[in-house]
Amino acid sequence: MGIKERWNNLMSNVALKRKLYDIIFESDTRAGKTFDVALMICILVSIILTIFDSLISHHVGQTIMVVLEYLLTIFFTAEYVARLYCSPNPKAYALSFFGIVDLLSILPVYLGFFMHSARFMIVIRSIRLIRIFRIFKLFSFLEEGYMLIDSIMASFRKILVFFLFVVIMVICIGTIMFMVESTEPGSPFTDIPTSIYWAIVTLTTVGYGDITPITPLGRFLSSVVMLLGYTIIAVPTGIVSASMMNRPRGSKKKNCPNCGRSGHEEKATHCKYCGSELEE
Amino acid sequence: MGIKERWNNLMSNVALKRKLYDIIFESDTRAGKTFDVALMICILVSIILTIFDSLISHHVGQTIMVVLEYLLTIFFTAEYVARLYCSPNPKAYALSFFGIVDLLSILPVYLGFFMHSARFMIVIRSIRLIRIFRIFKLFSFLEEGYMLIDSIMASFRKILVFFLFVVIMVICIGTIMFMVESTEPGSPFTDIPTSIYWAIVTLTTVGYGDITPITPLGRFLSSVVMLLGYTIIAVPTGIVSASMMNRPRGSKKKNCPNCGRSGHEEKATHCKYCGSELEE
Amino acid sequence: MGIKERWNNLMSNVALKRKLYDIIFESDTRAGKTFDVALMICILVSIILTIFDSLISHHVGQTIMVVLEYLLTIFFTAEYVARLYCSPNPKAYALSFFGIVDLLSILPVYLGFFMHSARFMIVIRSIRLIRIFRIFKLFSFLEEGYMLIDSIMASFRKILVFFLFVVIMVICIGTIMFMVESTEPGSPFTDIPTSIYWAIVTLTTVGYGDITPITPLGRFLSSVVMLLGYTIIAVPTGIVSASMMNRPRGSKKKNCPNCGRSGHEEKATHCKYCGSELEE
Amino acid sequence: MGIKERWNNLMSNVALKRKLYDIIFESDTRAGKTFDVALMICILVSIILTIFDSLISHHVGQTIMVVLEYLLTIFFTAEYVARLYCSPNPKAYALSFFGIVDLLSILPVYLGFFMHSARFMIVIRSIRLIRIFRIFKLFSFLEEGYMLIDSIMASFRKILVFFLFVVIMVICIGTIMFMVESTEPGSPFTDIPTSIYWAIVTLTTVGYGDITPITPLGRFLSSVVMLLGYTIIAVPTGIVSASMMNRPRGSKKKNCPNCGRSGHEEKATHCKYCGSELEE
Repeated sequence: MGIKERWNNLMSNVALKRKLYDIIFESDTRAGKTFDVALMICILVSIILTIFDSLISHHVGQTIMVVLEYLLTIFFTAEYVARLYCSPNPKAYALSFFGIVDLLSILPVYLGFFMHSARFMIVIRSIRLIRIFRIFKLFSFLEEGYMLIDSIMASFRKILVFFLFVVIMVICIGTIMFMVESTEPGSPFTDIPTSIYWAIVTLTTVGYGDITPITPLGRFLSSVVMLLGYTIIAVPTGIVSASMMNRPRGSKKKNCPNCGRSGHEEKATHCKYCGSELEE
Repeated sequence: MGIKERWNNLMSNVALKRKLYDIIFESDTRAGKTFDVALMICILVSIILTIFDSLISHHVGQTIMVVLEYLLTIFFTAEYVARLYCSPNPKAYALSFFGIVDLLSILPVYLGFFMHSARFMIVIRSIRLIRIFRIFKLFSFLEEGYMLIDSIMASFRKILVFFLFVVIMVICIGTIMFMVESTEPGSPFTDIPTSIYWAIVTLTTVGYGDITPITPLGRFLSSVVMLLGYTIIAVPTGIVSASMMNRPRGSKKKNCPNCGRSGHEEKATHCKYCGSELEE
Repeated sequence: MGIKERWNNLMSNVALKRKLYDIIFESDTRAGKTFDVALMICILVSIILTIFDSLISHHVGQTIMVVLEYLLTIFFTAEYVARLYCSPNPKAYALSFFGIVDLLSILPVYLGFFMHSARFMIVIRSIRLIRIFRIFKLFSFLEEGYMLIDSIMASFRKILVFFLFVVIMVICIGTIMFMVESTEPGSPFTDIPTSIYWAIVTLTTVGYGDITPITPLGRFLSSVVMLLGYTIIAVPTGIVSASMMNRPRGSKKKNCPNCGRSGHEEKATHCKYCGSELEE
Repeated sequence: MGIKERWNNLMSNVALKRKLYDIIFESDTRAGKTFDVALMICILVSIILTIFDSLISHHVGQTIMVVLEYLLTIFFTAEYVARLYCSPNPKAYALSFFGIVDLLSILPVYLGFFMHSARFMIVIRSIRLIRIFRIFKLFSFLEEGYMLIDSIMASFRKILVFFLFVVIMVICIGTIMFMVESTEPGSPFTDIPTSIYWAIVTLTTVGYGDITPITPLGRFLSSVVMLLGYTIIAVPTGIVSASMMNRPRGSKKKNCPNCGRSGHEEKATHCKYCGSELEE
């Protein structure tokens, strides 16, 4: 039997596919749950490793860490390939939110061969922790999450319009402050981009204090900007609050536990995008 | 044919006016859309030029920038004159919000001949970017914008009363802190205006940290001011939230795509203020 | 005619009383309006003088300012006495909110003879500016103000309970941070009151940055406090928003334009507390 | 009569138990009210002592304070034992919220023998001040408190989901900023945990300013993070506001004045958890 035949055999091995699917995508079975918990632990270990990597001085006990990181990446790569293999609709999985995150969380290590700092991007793996809801059967929590996202999405356009106004406002404020403050010797308002950065820091009430006005006129204008920021901070809050209160309740949405997409028919038992089984 | 006759001829050239109107005010036709996109690009280039102007050291490649800036200003001036020329009601356009912004965005360059820093005021051009909604036919986005402005306007008087209270409160707090802190040697509370500036920075929770209390009593009073600010930050949010929730829905307003004014009759096809065609 | 007789005569001079009342308490008549505008200008001048007093170095042109300040204070004292004299119910006026503010705004100058820094307290005069609403017949604005105060009062008890929790929380957080951070040499967490001050600065998201954690554990705990503050900032906002939305509308309250008290009968034409005429 | 007999006698002394219960748990009787007020004063004195302890240099007048502290602790210990003794259901009291707080507020002093800094933990006694509501018969205030807690609890799951998203977001933002900023010499972004700490400080709009971006790209990314924080600050506010407005009113809950638990039947006169008498 040639390699090609073996390959075709493997690809058509429905039993193996089904078994893998049960382990990887399901979390009801013992094997599935064990796999999910192990996966979460691996992701956490991997993130902690990355964070430690930035803390310690190089060449100290790093060999073990490098080895561990590669082992974890090999495991995650194998998992990604297996997910693609056993998914009833591999393309849909690959293009789903979690499919893209799964891919993005293994790429940085391979890119790290060529570009060192890219390695740190493996913290993108932390997004995969959202799956934690699935392990602990916290679907109702996920439901709350979807509600939040729905509320934000419903007011997405309002927020976008609001941001365009904020960006224009910030450009104007930044320039005016630059004109007022930059004449002072030793002023931190060295150029317009810096002044715009200051305007954002002030308007959002963050207020680092690395750039502060010195002139009386600058301070007066800052005060106006602050009181303005104080008022317009109310706008996004008002938008989201209104959206949350107006959200129709009780409209239970069937969301796929794997790819998170909704819009399934009432009777559907499998996700029409990635083929995962839907919760009743 | 004398100059005066030619001028009268031009002014009464209805076909030319109509053609110009279609290009400048409309965005449905191919020519109109191309013009709008070109205009947006010019505005963006102009803003980026101004920002760069503040970044680079003078006398370095500035000749090109100066030339570009003048070319853009000539283009914007020509556009403003054309808008005035082809508008069915030039006076209404000149006094509309966008008419004033269009004028304000060309003036600073001419003022820059006499006063150097006035040149930076051309960032006022950024306000013209609001027209971006028109190009991409994002009228529904504009609708959201009007909704936001309506909500804020509806609660404008409440916010104004609130601000008067804040201003009086800030004057009192600033003076008390000046009395408490200024006796300490090396205190940053050098005078009452500085103390009022500190009170605004604290009450709005910006908190730069350039002026901070040192005495125990001053710190205690600051804590009270902060907790006060924490509570009264709720007031504008409550006002705007309540206003947004109480806004009657479904009352579609016909807004002019050019000057943005509303109040048109149901059957109106042209804006009664500037004569632009209204969207169905 | 002896002095006593003259005095009794004066006190019973109804015509003078009525005339003074029309000038001082009313703002409908020409004389009344002129008086009110003059009063506002005097208050503003007085506040600006006080602020300038803190700015300039002493012994420079201060003689004029001192004279001006005393002239203004004599005027305000005369006004206060006149108000007491012509009010139909002097005691009620003296104990009303504006009566107390009027008294407090002249006292500091007299106290300033004995205690220099007390002079700055004359900024309390700024509270009198609230009367500005009356001059410009902005009673509907005042209505908005009462609505705001009603909303805050309605949720006053909830906010008080919330503050008790915040105070207890802040004491606990401050002490824990003191225990964690104070062991570090050169730590700004020198004692528990300072740490409590830091906790308030952090929890209210003011964040001066004069006291910041250095140890990893301290930074971790700070992060928790910040996220906590981020969530509990929502509580007062929620309280006030809910209160504003639940406020019954249309219940027009008759408020006295002079002392600001409500609770008058529908048919009342004069305030039952200070005797001022009520607006229809 | 042997010791064991005496003990049994004491334990079964119903009259003594009842008397103690009236003093310690009740606040209606004169004795009960006096006890409660004395207790509050002792707690306040104890907290003030602890705070002073951190302020003064050691060996100065500390002997008196140490003696006072031990006396107070002996009193609190005796009170705790008495509460356990006279409670109809000692186990329920010991496991109730106030039972645990009462125990925790005496433990640190005993732990202080072995570990010095543990002594400061006695500020946990401040939590006992919540009982202040009971003394002043401010049950309706307590009612408001429960309403607040109910509102927060009702949206607890939404807030938890929100926090998971914030934690993941903060890890990603922190790492990206570390990659961007750490290459700059003298950058405060020394490692990923520090960068995550910065991300939390920025996203919550606290903005200490101890760690600030220097590179243009870092400042641009910070601006995006700030505007993001500005928007997502609206989410918890929206959650709590919506929850407060949707809370069914008028559903009076019977809460135990001692342990604070609810869920009692309408006719119940004693708390089913700790046996305290319920208010009508």
